[in-house]
Amino acid sequence: MRRTSAASTVRGRVADRGALRRVIEDTGADALLVVGATSRDPDLLPFTGETRLGDCFVLARADGVRWLGYHSVIEREEAAATGLALLDPATLRVADVIVGGRGSRLARSLGIALRRAKLPGRRVAIAGRYPNGDLAQALAQLRHQGFRFTSGHDAVLRLRRPKRGAELDEIRGVAAATNRALRGVARILSEAGRSTRRSKAEGRSSARRKGRRARGPAVGPELVWRGGALTVGVVRREVAATFAAAGLDQPEGNLIAPGRQGAVPHNTGDPSSVLRAGESLIVDLFPRRRLHADCTRTFCVGAAPPELLAAHRAVLDALVLARERARVGTRGFAIQEEVCRHFEALGYPTSLQRPVTAGYVHGLGHGVGFEVHELPHFRRDGALDQGILERDDVFTLEPGLYDPEAGYGVRLEDLCRLGPGGVEILTPLPYDLDPRAWPRDDGA
Amino acid sequence: MRRTSAASTVRGRVADRGALRRVIEDTGADALLVVGATSRDPDLLPFTGETRLGDCFVLARADGVRWLGYHSVIEREEAAATGLALLDPATLRVADVIVGGRGSRLARSLGIALRRAKLPGRRVAIAGRYPNGDLAQALAQLRHQGFRFTSGHDAVLRLRRPKRGAELDEIRGVAAATNRALRGVARILSEAGRSTRRSKAEGRSSARRKGRRARGPAVGPELVWRGGALTVGVVRREVAATFAAAGLDQPEGNLIAPGRQGAVPHNTGDPSSVLRAGESLIVDLFPRRRLHADCTRTFCVGAAPPELLAAHRAVLDALVLARERARVGTRGFAIQEEVCRHFEALGYPTSLQRPVTAGYVHGLGHGVGFEVHELPHFRRDGALDQGILERDDVFTLEPGLYDPEAGYGVRLEDLCRLGPGGVEILTPLPYDLDPRAWPRDDGA
Repeated sequence: MRRTSAASTVRGRVADRGALRRVIEDTGADALLVVGATSRDPDLLPFTGETRLGDCFVLARADGVRWLGYHSVIEREEAAATGLALLDPATLRVADVIVGGRGSRLARSLGIALRRAKLPGRRVAIAGRYPNGDLAQALAQLRHQGFRFTSGHDAVLRLRRPKRGAELDEIRGVAAATNRALRGVARILSEAGRSTRRSKAEGRSSARRKGRRARGPAVGPELVWRGGALTVGVVRREVAATFAAAGLDQPEGNLIAPGRQGAVPHNTGDPSSVLRAGESLIVDLFPRRRLHADCTRTFCVGAAPPELLAAHRAVLDALVLARERARVGTRGFAIQEEVCRHFEALGYPTSLQRPVTAGYVHGLGHGVGFEVHELPHFRRDGALDQGILERDDVFTLEPGLYDPEAGYGVRLEDLCRLGPGGVEILTPLPYDLDPRAWPRDDGA
Repeated sequence: MRRTSAASTVRGRVADRGALRRVIEDTGADALLVVGATSRDPDLLPFTGETRLGDCFVLARADGVRWLGYHSVIEREEAAATGLALLDPATLRVADVIVGGRGSRLARSLGIALRRAKLPGRRVAIAGRYPNGDLAQALAQLRHQGFRFTSGHDAVLRLRRPKRGAELDEIRGVAAATNRALRGVARILSEAGRSTRRSKAEGRSSARRKGRRARGPAVGPELVWRGGALTVGVVRREVAATFAAAGLDQPEGNLIAPGRQGAVPHNTGDPSSVLRAGESLIVDLFPRRRLHADCTRTFCVGAAPPELLAAHRAVLDALVLARERARVGTRGFAIQEEVCRHFEALGYPTSLQRPVTAGYVHGLGHGVGFEVHELPHFRRDGALDQGILERDDVFTLEPGLYDPEAGYGVRLEDLCRLGPGGVEILTPLPYDLDPRAWPRDDGA
């Protein structure tokens, strides 16, 4: 491949100078310095917009003045498209021969930028991601010049938190493609037939079924679709095609986890596993353009076993409960506690007191944006103000129930935006286990 | 989504203790410390194999002893699968309440690990990628404990460089899927028909054609496939489906660039662009399982204009020349110089003396492995020993010719392995511009 970039007219935001000033002042530093190996670094994206650059950095002063430093002459137009004041390769003396490799080169660039910024002091809050060795080397050299570094991690997380304007529009668009992909999965499952080739089917997943015979419930026959076995890999291929056609990628993959695999929330799903009637199938998609969406549905082809039906009902009730409780000013973990009490009242264990491996085993949700997991959080630990819901938050609500013994997992996850009137669902899809209950894909 | 991980029995390598000792000694440090936000960090992958962990680190002493530190109890089995000595969450005192956030937490973990390692001194070469703010905070605290940090970047690049055993096998597998995807593109193009709906077609890409009318050559009609316009997005969708079925992802996307778009090597290709007869189409794919492959072919449906045919012939000759010159001990940049002279003798400008925007505008190749771009390099600058070809190198050779005025780009890129007998091509595909000259996909 050739290294890629593409000019664009869409500028970064952080137009809210008040917010920038507040987060920089809270760090106690004189400036915020975001250094990335690519402008797609989630900490740089809010500043650089859709521009694609390689090695670059943004330096922001508390008064709102911001510079973009870049290192390749051919990125001139892309850099200009950010609308930021530019520190070009000539200014940063990129062409000069220096000793010490990439770390020394970075130290010189950053040193030139920091001196030009005429900061009131030499304390700098740093964020972004960069190869650790080069960064450590650069910071060591800059310390000799009197600069001191503190973490700007929380500062950028706070800047990235509210989603408005073009960013919210983009999340809506990515969510719409996610919805199409899930409707497509429902369509495949509703078209799937039952295999009659028992012996071949048994050979294909004998190891899995052996375990299930010993400990789990009976499940139905394997599924076929378009003349072949309907595997996790086939579903994954169709999902990938939908996202590729929409210009999205899946940098962290997805989770397509049938039966017992879905009973362990971090199992991504074995591509060679053949789907079966009567078992749960968790489909959790979190694609990205510049920002992510995130949505999960759980399916079951054919008659679902009673314990799966009951769990699905309990999870759906939990999701509705969580959605109603989610308001500006509410603590995310308080909703998690309420959801735990709901599940415990129905006899399901939860992780409220101590970690469990069956029942409701995880947290309620997480903020979504430039990364799949960002602010707000829904945890007991973590900074309190970062876990209280705010207007313009975009986050998931995703209760679930899991039973490795019974061999099922159920998770229902909606992507939500918190507006003035409460939660707006960005993933308005059916919740039905039965894919035939889903309306046919209408291109929505 | 839920955070993901998956146990595996495939262990990391770096079994070559001699290599580990050499690279650590060359840094002048007492140990190599690789810190990642995920075990998929390209610097961690050689140590952690196929294991999937979140926040973790590897500490390696010059005598070959290596520890894996991890921070989540539920990753116990995955961590054990690496075969490394473990520093578990209890040992790293992860559950203790501490002040100062993630950076302080990291400082404590690393401090415990470094003291347990009983190093001869306190000089540490650091590598990996981690949020800059947290890393800076952690290193500052560790400096107060007497530790000093230098860059371990080159050290891990050298460890990652030779590809043997399971890693080479994996690259072969990823290359095979890449070959399938390119054969699939050839099949689509050979099946494509010419649109007769001139007016609608003109409306769809009038802006592009307007530019071409003014400055470029005439091109043929738009292409249709399976009843619809054959766009870049359609090709991208088919490629994504092939890779998803093979369990591969495309973390950095791909380049599918027709005509004038392909004349700018960093243009990724507009999904809405409709392909046309008589124009060039560059298809550059670089998918990943744990390691990457990388291959490019250039197509033209229908009669190719004479200048495109001539450029294609010149590029193919350059590729054959480069392949013959690539031997153990040869400097990559020396081959680049030879390729430049070949092109210049034919009248094409090259970047040998100064940067150009038409002709041969880029470098000859790059190492491929845990990242798409790694060692060896083929540049004039860069450390000399990192640019001399070694046995077990895996790299691309990818000459190309570009003409934004004429509106074409041609690049032919093979993935190569340097064995004792010279270059082995891991992407043995046709080079033909005409997709009908490609044999039908035989599943190879």
